[in-house]
Amino acid sequence: MSDLLSGPVEIVGAGLIGTSIALACRRAGVDVLLSDASAEHLRTASGLGAGRAKEPGEVAQLVVVAVPPDHLGEEIAAALDAAGEDTVVTDVGSVKAAPLEAVSGHPAAARYVGSHPMAGSERSGPLAASADLFTGRPWAVTPHAGAAATAVRRVTALVETCGAVPVMLTPAEHDKAVARTSHVPHLVSSLVAGTLAGAAPEHLALTGQGVRDVTRVAGGDPALYSQIIGGNSDAVASLLREVRDRLEMALEAISEGDRVGLESLLAHGVAGTRAIPGKHGGPLQPVAAVHVAVPDHPGELARLFADVGGSGVNIEDVRIDHDPGRPVGLVELDVAEGRAEELMGALESKGWVTHR
Amino acid sequence: MSDLLSGPVEIVGAGLIGTSIALACRRAGVDVLLSDASAEHLRTASGLGAGRAKEPGEVAQLVVVAVPPDHLGEEIAAALDAAGEDTVVTDVGSVKAAPLEAVSGHPAAARYVGSHPMAGSERSGPLAASADLFTGRPWAVTPHAGAAATAVRRVTALVETCGAVPVMLTPAEHDKAVARTSHVPHLVSSLVAGTLAGAAPEHLALTGQGVRDVTRVAGGDPALYSQIIGGNSDAVASLLREVRDRLEMALEAISEGDRVGLESLLAHGVAGTRAIPGKHGGPLQPVAAVHVAVPDHPGELARLFADVGGSGVNIEDVRIDHDPGRPVGLVELDVAEGRAEELMGALESKGWVTHR
Repeated sequence: MSDLLSGPVEIVGAGLIGTSIALACRRAGVDVLLSDASAEHLRTASGLGAGRAKEPGEVAQLVVVAVPPDHLGEEIAAALDAAGEDTVVTDVGSVKAAPLEAVSGHPAAARYVGSHPMAGSERSGPLAASADLFTGRPWAVTPHAGAAATAVRRVTALVETCGAVPVMLTPAEHDKAVARTSHVPHLVSSLVAGTLAGAAPEHLALTGQGVRDVTRVAGGDPALYSQIIGGNSDAVASLLREVRDRLEMALEAISEGDRVGLESLLAHGVAGTRAIPGKHGGPLQPVAAVHVAVPDHPGELARLFADVGGSGVNIEDVRIDHDPGRPVGLVELDVAEGRAEELMGALESKGWVTHR
Repeated sequence: MSDLLSGPVEIVGAGLIGTSIALACRRAGVDVLLSDASAEHLRTASGLGAGRAKEPGEVAQLVVVAVPPDHLGEEIAAALDAAGEDTVVTDVGSVKAAPLEAVSGHPAAARYVGSHPMAGSERSGPLAASADLFTGRPWAVTPHAGAAATAVRRVTALVETCGAVPVMLTPAEHDKAVARTSHVPHLVSSLVAGTLAGAAPEHLALTGQGVRDVTRVAGGDPALYSQIIGGNSDAVASLLREVRDRLEMALEAISEGDRVGLESLLAHGVAGTRAIPGKHGGPLQPVAAVHVAVPDHPGELARLFADVGGSGVNIEDVRIDHDPGRPVGLVELDVAEGRAEELMGALESKGWVTHR
């Protein structure tokens, strides 16, 4: 238990995120009070050991508002109204400027500090919760100008209790950051995916790993993402206009046969991929890909990874690319450049078919 | 050795693709003649066992033109000029209408049938070649209206000799298909990646797996992709205009707070992700993700996959998501829906920390 977070912690909204935070707090020995509009969610979360239903009159040290995006503002304000004079209130919404606006005139606004864990699941509800959901993930903490220093420290203590890595940003900076790292990529991925809807199946037979990667996030729940993206409209629209302008440039370069212009746009994209932070927050390390053909039945991956482990070469990333026509998978192992030959030699000596 | 492809096969251009085809033919016992403008490439490919340098006057049964996109037309025409009257000519370029146009007036055009293997590597040159590069991959065969049936059969035999899966398309259909499944996704991925270039590092600290997936293909060589995309300008421009129009719709919906319109665009994207062919060409199976925390040093992945293998649950896909701040990785294991609980139970009994 942290000195700064001795509890009780109140969780408003016992869904996936709220219940996961509750479980992480309970594991750290912190008392947790739960509230939810759904009696069933409350019962489920309590049953999982996430805490006990809040009794009238109980006062928490920290209230965590974990309700859907469109209800954040009202619930944060309600928590500030009801809380004790030392109670700190945070929320875990994906957008930070809009909920802040809803409470900025509140007399207790200094005790509100927004936050946003960069973790989730394709499932929802308390049954999908886990105390480990946030382990090692970035978690933005977004104090406004009038936030009390003690409030910031208490919210940061919650992040650390959950095993996450705090990233300090102003609310406006946060919203610009997630527009760039999440909302616009999601939206554009969805536009690319949309071009596949209704396409001829014999054309889609040529689908490779590239387009699968580009469109993977587009499979997310449209109702949830329209709330998230719609709640960050200014930052998203501004960046999306930049993308639109560059798309027009690409269209012009392609239509006019301007290869130099097209190449320069593509080179700008390469520069962007290199700006993404690498493993463990360090600079991106150059990796080499080794491909291995693996029969598609249980046990073969285990045998492969046992042989990889025996080689002593550490794997930076793994991908499985399934064949269109036969029961064999191609596994791509990304390793540090300069170790690829060593790994291939080790695997081939064990009978694996590899290529780069 | 196939009855339809007894050899010799001539490979024009001993780079990654040409040398890989040569190695696959040699493995099948087919005689291979190599030619390349670079004496060094020729020496390297021969040294790898990919075949022998072509002597003047030798006539091949099948010529495979595997030169850079901008030189395909002239090299295919030259091959038809030089070939015997039974020689079939194919090429392996990423675009099919443009090279066909260059030879459509040729008296021997009936003996030309284009093709396009959907395989590659981030490396190039004969040293990166492998006889297994095409195993299980789609390989488009694109006969034009005047192509001879024997020519189509011989090119299809080459595809099968290389272990790939033939997909028959007209040249125009092929180019529309790859605009949709490859060129436009690559270009749009590059535009998203471009928004990350020069972004504030503290904003990029919030980068998650989603944007990494969306921008992964954008890391490809700009010079090569500007040739490929530029060589398919009509199909790419036409589809890119559709994307532009939908992007404008998204921008309007976001600017006007039209959540219903935004949700409908996102739902169209979900429909597109579901249109992508699933494992082994079958329909996409619903999968569930299980996350496992894995210490980041050699041997741990082997231990994990041994335990996964022991569980008897087959893994459909694997991803490694590195933490920003600590030496532990989160491994995502995708399994058939309904097997996730079983896998989690098996792994937790071995001491792994899992969540969905």
